[in-house]
Amino acid sequence: MISVALMGHGVVGSGVAEILTTHKQKLFSSVGEEIYLKHILDLRDFPDSPLCDRFTKDFEDIISDREVRVVIETMGGINPAYEFTKRCLGVGKSVVTSNKELVARHGAELLQLAKDNNANYLFEASVGGGIPILRPINQCLVANEVDEIAGILNGTTNFILTKMIDENMPFDEALKLAQDLGYAERNPEADVEGHDACRKICILASLAYGKHIYPDNVHTEGITKIALEDVEYAAVWGGVIKLIGKCKLLPSGLMDIVVAPMFVPCTSQLANINDVFNGIMVRGDCTGDVVFYGKGAGKLPTASAVVADTVDCCKHLKTRKNLFWVDTTDNCIAPYTESLTKVYMRCLAEDADTAYNKAQDIFGDITRLERASAPTGEFAFVTNEDMPYGNILEAVENLEQAGIKVASAIRIGNL
Amino acid sequence: MISVALMGHGVVGSGVAEILTTHKQKLFSSVGEEIYLKHILDLRDFPDSPLCDRFTKDFEDIISDREVRVVIETMGGINPAYEFTKRCLGVGKSVVTSNKELVARHGAELLQLAKDNNANYLFEASVGGGIPILRPINQCLVANEVDEIAGILNGTTNFILTKMIDENMPFDEALKLAQDLGYAERNPEADVEGHDACRKICILASLAYGKHIYPDNVHTEGITKIALEDVEYAAVWGGVIKLIGKCKLLPSGLMDIVVAPMFVPCTSQLANINDVFNGIMVRGDCTGDVVFYGKGAGKLPTASAVVADTVDCCKHLKTRKNLFWVDTTDNCIAPYTESLTKVYMRCLAEDADTAYNKAQDIFGDITRLERASAPTGEFAFVTNEDMPYGNILEAVENLEQAGIKVASAIRIGNL
Repeated sequence: MISVALMGHGVVGSGVAEILTTHKQKLFSSVGEEIYLKHILDLRDFPDSPLCDRFTKDFEDIISDREVRVVIETMGGINPAYEFTKRCLGVGKSVVTSNKELVARHGAELLQLAKDNNANYLFEASVGGGIPILRPINQCLVANEVDEIAGILNGTTNFILTKMIDENMPFDEALKLAQDLGYAERNPEADVEGHDACRKICILASLAYGKHIYPDNVHTEGITKIALEDVEYAAVWGGVIKLIGKCKLLPSGLMDIVVAPMFVPCTSQLANINDVFNGIMVRGDCTGDVVFYGKGAGKLPTASAVVADTVDCCKHLKTRKNLFWVDTTDNCIAPYTESLTKVYMRCLAEDADTAYNKAQDIFGDITRLERASAPTGEFAFVTNEDMPYGNILEAVENLEQAGIKVASAIRIGNL
Repeated sequence: MISVALMGHGVVGSGVAEILTTHKQKLFSSVGEEIYLKHILDLRDFPDSPLCDRFTKDFEDIISDREVRVVIETMGGINPAYEFTKRCLGVGKSVVTSNKELVARHGAELLQLAKDNNANYLFEASVGGGIPILRPINQCLVANEVDEIAGILNGTTNFILTKMIDENMPFDEALKLAQDLGYAERNPEADVEGHDACRKICILASLAYGKHIYPDNVHTEGITKIALEDVEYAAVWGGVIKLIGKCKLLPSGLMDIVVAPMFVPCTSQLANINDVFNGIMVRGDCTGDVVFYGKGAGKLPTASAVVADTVDCCKHLKTRKNLFWVDTTDNCIAPYTESLTKVYMRCLAEDADTAYNKAQDIFGDITRLERASAPTGEFAFVTNEDMPYGNILEAVENLEQAGIKVASAIRIGNL
């Protein structure tokens, strides 16, 4: 019997407790021993839980219990999860988590602490919820250089964009619906401004490239400025708008990493990932594109990934999993202004045709997009050659100085 | 340094040798030691290979070399791979393979032999080429009961169907093109009759359910009878025709397993998997649907999966991976006539409308499909209720007896 403790009995944590109970026999077969959930830490009371005798409000009950070999952290947030995790790893207890914020902020430090104490720190559930992604990258694709990772990493924004695309629903209304359905928080900033997706692409990038990439250093744009006009032009172009987190190793050794809405062509596997689903594309030098699809959030999907990591910890009580990246003060990230991309723009001017000619002068090779219900003075186009994003920003300024308002500028994803 | 040997220097084997050379540093970081490719067994000569000094024609050089801890089998076919694998496992050498035919035929025996000799037998590359699938099912989804697995498991037939769908190319012409491009063998039977897909769904089913499922016991239909008319009706219905390998655990404990072309709705993730790509959907009770997509064949994708398994063996020289299923003489498979499905039918009769009414009498609730260029006497429909496949076969007989020719009957996949 291997004793484990659970910290945080919220949505994911209660799912973990449920799976440990309902799937006991299957987990026993896999581990070869029973996984016994000995303590559950939560400040709230759960008198009706079948496990009500296991609850504690005192972290010391967990840290001081030598029988507890694995601690499952599903509290979320930085504090007190960070302190608790450090103390658990510090005494050689392995820790499993779904806490993307903590991993993205302090992953390198916690991995080092795990290593120093011959313990494991696993966090499959922190990216893509129930979708297997970190272990496949780390183990199955180990014989590849990972050239690029790009994904739809946030279910809430994907739900909103899907409503905008499929039902012509404006952003505000789609956000309200997402909130009513419980997909979005009352304060939706972390989702709609791209911060959640940013944490996840940082974890993926750190794992693939072995160096900690901090979210604060990653250029991040959300979806709040996407208009239905842009959705319509994306369709005319032959694609859809998706919020993409993307990282790519440049020949310089620096990383091109960004979170932003992008035009995705319908032929891309990522274009067909709708509603709250997530999809992650990993481009390996040997495998080519591999895509992983599934539910990126939710109680049982996320909890099932946490439990799988718990099983892995239980099977490796004395050995370490080779999941690691180092902290570094070196700059790993190329300035986002140097990132090469094509771009879509929707503009407003007094005379659209004259303004389009001006845009041609500025950008060179561009293709005009037309939509039936465009108001007078509106025009839109895509550029046909990659250029540094800084040049695109400059061009926008030039357009504005020529009296042409740039209503939207959205990257075109090479996906 | 860990010495390994390679048996078979064909397409996949030469890819393995290449990756072990070109990715030496990355593999070293993962294993913590160098993987040294000491012997390569092949009956042919490769005087121009940079590894020409490693070649041998004598298996005894490998089996008798105590330094060789892991043997990579990429010979394909049953003989002599079966004998060689048994002898390697019998002396405690771990074996890694891409040989789906051998795993599907003798997997349970070889897994038992590995277990008895404290060795590992790994075969990630045998299903889905470079797509991580067996390890994710076995490890990442361990906290799930797998309710169903369904996939596009054969790239050659998917290429042919894609040509039929996208370019209106008849089957024979698409097959010829696949042969010209090297995707299909001169004798294409194993692909187009579904045998290759059958081996793969058997491996997936065996892994997910813990009991060896033998290909000879699985009802298997190929794509040779698919006509462009059917492709057109599928589009009218709102989907595409794909060759699907599918297994589902029934409440009885028996398995519903079949390989057959199916109508797949456009909303399914499997509908958008085109050309030689593979896609596998795993339906877990906690995760819901998870889909894995990528190149199901080819030199480097397949070889990269073989090398990842090799790394795993090198990291587990003294411990066993928990990848196992047992042999059983019990019947595990439900008769295919009891499999519940909806079905599409294209029929020919003297008078289509009268015949359609007859079909309605026989099937009950059906929906007629119309296409513009249908010849006189042709009609098509889909049934709206699941029924046992045996009843469908009976209904076909009844139609035929009423003078109505059933030109096509294709299952509708619940995917």
